[in-house]
Amino acid sequence: MRPIPPESLVALLGRWSAGRGPLYLLLATRLRQLIADGELPDQHLLPPDRTLAAALAVGRGTVVAAYDVLRQEGRLVRTRGSGTRVCAEAPDPGTSGTATANPLFLHLLDRPGDGVLQLACAGPDALPPELVAAHHTALDHLSRMSSAGLGYHPAGVPELRTALAARYTAQGVPTTQDQILVTTGGQQALALLARLLVAPGDRVLTETPTYPGAVEVFRDAVAAIRTVRVAEHGLDVDAFAAAMTRERPALAYVTASFHNPTGTCVHTLARRRLARVAERSGTPLVDDEVLAPLGFTDQPPPIAAFATADEVVTIGSLSKLVWGGIRIGWVRAAPAMITRLARLKATHDLGGDVLAQLSAAHLLPQLDELRRRRVAALRERHDHLRGELARVLPEWEVTSAQGGQTLWVRLPGTDTESFAQTALRHGVAVVPGSAFDPGRGHREHVRIPYLADPATLGDAVERLASAWRQGAAVR
Amino acid sequence: MRPIPPESLVALLGRWSAGRGPLYLLLATRLRQLIADGELPDQHLLPPDRTLAAALAVGRGTVVAAYDVLRQEGRLVRTRGSGTRVCAEAPDPGTSGTATANPLFLHLLDRPGDGVLQLACAGPDALPPELVAAHHTALDHLSRMSSAGLGYHPAGVPELRTALAARYTAQGVPTTQDQILVTTGGQQALALLARLLVAPGDRVLTETPTYPGAVEVFRDAVAAIRTVRVAEHGLDVDAFAAAMTRERPALAYVTASFHNPTGTCVHTLARRRLARVAERSGTPLVDDEVLAPLGFTDQPPPIAAFATADEVVTIGSLSKLVWGGIRIGWVRAAPAMITRLARLKATHDLGGDVLAQLSAAHLLPQLDELRRRRVAALRERHDHLRGELARVLPEWEVTSAQGGQTLWVRLPGTDTESFAQTALRHGVAVVPGSAFDPGRGHREHVRIPYLADPATLGDAVERLASAWRQGAAVR
Repeated sequence: MRPIPPESLVALLGRWSAGRGPLYLLLATRLRQLIADGELPDQHLLPPDRTLAAALAVGRGTVVAAYDVLRQEGRLVRTRGSGTRVCAEAPDPGTSGTATANPLFLHLLDRPGDGVLQLACAGPDALPPELVAAHHTALDHLSRMSSAGLGYHPAGVPELRTALAARYTAQGVPTTQDQILVTTGGQQALALLARLLVAPGDRVLTETPTYPGAVEVFRDAVAAIRTVRVAEHGLDVDAFAAAMTRERPALAYVTASFHNPTGTCVHTLARRRLARVAERSGTPLVDDEVLAPLGFTDQPPPIAAFATADEVVTIGSLSKLVWGGIRIGWVRAAPAMITRLARLKATHDLGGDVLAQLSAAHLLPQLDELRRRRVAALRERHDHLRGELARVLPEWEVTSAQGGQTLWVRLPGTDTESFAQTALRHGVAVVPGSAFDPGRGHREHVRIPYLADPATLGDAVERLASAWRQGAAVR
Repeated sequence: MRPIPPESLVALLGRWSAGRGPLYLLLATRLRQLIADGELPDQHLLPPDRTLAAALAVGRGTVVAAYDVLRQEGRLVRTRGSGTRVCAEAPDPGTSGTATANPLFLHLLDRPGDGVLQLACAGPDALPPELVAAHHTALDHLSRMSSAGLGYHPAGVPELRTALAARYTAQGVPTTQDQILVTTGGQQALALLARLLVAPGDRVLTETPTYPGAVEVFRDAVAAIRTVRVAEHGLDVDAFAAAMTRERPALAYVTASFHNPTGTCVHTLARRRLARVAERSGTPLVDDEVLAPLGFTDQPPPIAAFATADEVVTIGSLSKLVWGGIRIGWVRAAPAMITRLARLKATHDLGGDVLAQLSAAHLLPQLDELRRRRVAALRERHDHLRGELARVLPEWEVTSAQGGQTLWVRLPGTDTESFAQTALRHGVAVVPGSAFDPGRGHREHVRIPYLADPATLGDAVERLASAWRQGAAVR
């Protein structure tokens, strides 16, 4: 099939650029409407971006970004060699320029009702006693000061920056406090890095599946997301390294230990290789270590151990080891990048909560003990959930995790987006695989966290099984 | 003088679009360079945006945004009727796409050395005992819960949203909890609103002078900032209302009580009028009430009292009444806008610190008592600083504030950007007037906070006077 002639598309587009907002969003909006109205029928080829840009007298970046928006929504499909094709049957993800329809985020915004077992979001659900004690200590300390300052620390309070730098140094990654920026959780670290490094239309390289919160950030930055598969045994490092060189992304994002959602871990040699490729290709490689403290066995050092801070940026957080509600994350990067991030953070919120940061600084020395306790519990629950799934739902394909908090489970022949709806009606909230895939693939997978106590996990598996049996009756 | 022919400018621009980032920034960067190199000489007229856009085959928005970036830097000047003119003598504000050179923010990022009196940033510098008590209570409460949840609340913890809504309702502005979004201080409220409402090139209407943190946010959003003057007696409401109708800004920003930096207050009838004009023109009017609790006398209700929440958005914060380090701010708006802001906040940081929010909820009932105490102290210090300035520096023109924390002072015939440098060498940090003016005017003004104790204020005035005498020797 030949592409629609550019002049015909220009005529169809009409007064597309009237209205408020950036051109690429106006163009995407009008194209979306033409697809919805059937004016651009299913499987029709669109003109190449360069051709359409010339016909519309706009920059090529405008068309690239508009196509990317629609591609991410599933309304366009690009195949190497054959161009960009309309996909009219795409499910409506209900996205707009600023909205998010990611199920993980919707579960945060609109919690399931009472009685529903929450297996959607994952994290500890209570404050460890060490955190409570650290808070009381920090509060006493602050209230005894004659002046506590104005409380604005865009880069983070010095006590915590110093303590985090010392912790990295002790772990064999020499770090100074000017290499640390404290953020409101790992999520803000990602958001600030994207704001600094990614312009609309820029390429971003991620794993797939990957952390949905990262995908939301990159979509918000209107990045063109390229992906490399994470299989059962972990990331295809050859393919990721090749893509870093080939695609020259503005940012590459990995979760080397432990991958969310599969729980896999990138081994030492591969880390060294990723660091070297980042250096050679000049690609900022963001290593998300938010789940790194949750390894079941010894694990390799962070990728940053094999590179200079100019190329490899590390994200950390207390959310998964301590508690999400304390909202303490950080970036480790070169001092010059930290300065730029701090300026951005000043504009965005002038800095985070001071008491939480001081508490975190008091807590750091006890982190290893806390970690031993939590990992022991997680390991037991991991084994329990695996056992229950194998016993009750033997048709499901479940692999082991090496760390983290979740199992990645394949339900052969099942569309998990609709299975998740059925499961919710059976009283258990799970997130379908497509939420973890920027291209909305992995539609036979679900992610199941093993954070709950064994009784709750057993109950959840029973509810999943009854949802599964109802689905089987339909299948 | 006729404008430079577009084809000559296109030739000068050369390969301007090569490089990473949005087109308008690439174009602004290249134009900045041509101005710096003298290729575009002082006072030369540039082609109209439409003409240049056609010549470069880019959208008009690209040129508008690029011109606006340079206009905000003072490198271009636009005069109605005569076009856009090069201003080669502009001081170099050292800005780049993401950096900020605003002195107020630089003082946060790079604190003055020991012994320098900090009259740059303004806010309480210690935790009131009520805050400490509320924190201990909240911590006890949280630590006794068997489950404290995951800790992610993009819209804010329900306890605080409900308490804030009840407080508005008690103040005569009926509010439900779904009209409240909790933010990391008032700054994040501004940043999220700009992200939601302002696209690059959109017009934003502000007062001048105004809060520099707002200007940073609007610059970060690449807005075209239009301003209306705040004179000695306050905002020119006629001019602001006319500009709302004429400019149709994507967002209009006012600080009705109390204006930062002048300490003036918009009276009741004018508030009613602003609300009506916002409604009629469909302009989102953002009323920044961060300083509203610091009124020396009774004050009118917020502008939101005179409008539906669809048009008037209110920003509040505990930073100026309680302490900046607790980082609790909020937005009051229509429920639909709150939902969209919460989705944005989920992407940006998944929600703020939970303990700080619960402490704030516990603190709210004691806010009025805290306010009485703080206002009494501020009033005394306001009078003291005014008295000292009148006694020691009678040449300076000092008006009274009706509330807030700062005096707006005119130093006749003095460039306060260089005076601020002299003052710093004399051991006192003040922010020059140009930091409060999106157009970098108000160059004879400085803002002086009266938060310090009387002895420190007296000392500061002496240091200002010795800087002034040194300047006089030069003048």
